[in-house]
Amino acid sequence: MRYLIKFSYDGTNYHGYQTQKGYHTIQQTMEEAATKINNGKKVIITASGRTDRGVHALGQLAHLDIDVKITPYKLKRAMNTNLPEDIHIISAEEVEDNFHCRYQAKEKEYEYRINMGEYNPLRRNYVYQHNYPLQVDKMEQAIHYLEGKHDFRAFVTDNKEKENCVRTIKKAMVTKDSTNQEELVITFIGDGFLRYQVRNMVGLLLKVGIGKIEPLQVKEILDSKVRGKHGCRVPACGLCLKNVVLKPKIEIID
Amino acid sequence: MRYLIKFSYDGTNYHGYQTQKGYHTIQQTMEEAATKINNGKKVIITASGRTDRGVHALGQLAHLDIDVKITPYKLKRAMNTNLPEDIHIISAEEVEDNFHCRYQAKEKEYEYRINMGEYNPLRRNYVYQHNYPLQVDKMEQAIHYLEGKHDFRAFVTDNKEKENCVRTIKKAMVTKDSTNQEELVITFIGDGFLRYQVRNMVGLLLKVGIGKIEPLQVKEILDSKVRGKHGCRVPACGLCLKNVVLKPKIEIID
Repeated sequence: MRYLIKFSYDGTNYHGYQTQKGYHTIQQTMEEAATKINNGKKVIITASGRTDRGVHALGQLAHLDIDVKITPYKLKRAMNTNLPEDIHIISAEEVEDNFHCRYQAKEKEYEYRINMGEYNPLRRNYVYQHNYPLQVDKMEQAIHYLEGKHDFRAFVTDNKEKENCVRTIKKAMVTKDSTNQEELVITFIGDGFLRYQVRNMVGLLLKVGIGKIEPLQVKEILDSKVRGKHGCRVPACGLCLKNVVLKPKIEIID
Repeated sequence: MRYLIKFSYDGTNYHGYQTQKGYHTIQQTMEEAATKINNGKKVIITASGRTDRGVHALGQLAHLDIDVKITPYKLKRAMNTNLPEDIHIISAEEVEDNFHCRYQAKEKEYEYRINMGEYNPLRRNYVYQHNYPLQVDKMEQAIHYLEGKHDFRAFVTDNKEKENCVRTIKKAMVTKDSTNQEELVITFIGDGFLRYQVRNMVGLLLKVGIGKIEPLQVKEILDSKVRGKHGCRVPACGLCLKNVVLKPKIEIID
């Protein structure tokens, strides 16, 4: 039986989502828990996409196959019993055998948090500490140039010249946390993001915020399609995958 | 020169504030940092009061004497350089030689956080996870019986029959976090609190929240002055010392 699970994790103590030999990862930790439930028969977990080392998730999705007969609710319970306290299954449901979490992911929401106030040790793993004042209004202006369908090659770090870098950002916004006005929240909702794209975009917005470049230059840099020259990747700890939206179920008509 | 410092800490990895032989504590860690700045001459740090193992602080106060000539701003900077990332000096100022942080503390504000929603791994060290629905209105009713000047013996865990347990709670309230309505915030502002008093009071309020007792019974239990019979100490991780208010400076008239 194939299951779709929604889960959250604190990425601080992991070497990213994806399994890598010799490293402690979210995927490996989750597969170990699922394999136990599956009476020792190896389970592969396929997420909607990977997240990098130190990045968090509050609404990640994945699918997995379990041979043992188990209700979704009991699968959730059993997984949480076997998982460490920094990974949590929020929900589980049965899906069709041909369901594929990566291909069926339609939209992702990422959030990046910046603390402009005094350093707070309780938030140290969840925000990027920025000790200089930011011109938030200019950042708000600049972020709108990133909305829409663009070739985001300028925000890719790796040299992947042949890769298709066209993505659509449906919504991008800069807000303040309603409890703590000194915590800036930068949100991106889009059909998918390239590796380090969000952190490079935030890095460029920070340059706008400190007055090093003007908002319009964000558009120029985007249009230049010159990889990695302008960005400045911000730390992983501020980033969180908040939500993944799936394509509606495909109705098969015979 | 005597300095007053304001500081914050994540209590998760410490065995409480106060120095204890063989344990890793906040005080010891801070004294080691201050002693380095004082050219190796031992510095004692005297806080407004201790916090227990796992309890956090966002506005703790302490005083310390430094023999080396240093401005308050440089003391803050030097301390933060020598402190681990889970302790942070917010500010420092010079005070009179007879200033005493514990005796001059007039008021303390504690906050206890309860998560009534789905478990969130990013909040695991900062909230108490409560998986059953709570009747918040009844808790609001009940908490007001704790306001005022009372003998809080009923909320003390240790057997200290001769100890004076009279304290004044100026304000006590139950609110919801403005960003996350599923996170309950219980605030107590008072002239001082007995050991485990806040956590025992919150434990009793939770009994009201789940409908095990009626709000009025909180008053009866308080009035009974029977130690520890009714409480149920909630975990340390939800507790945070938010603020300490000092008595106004005493003007000495010759």
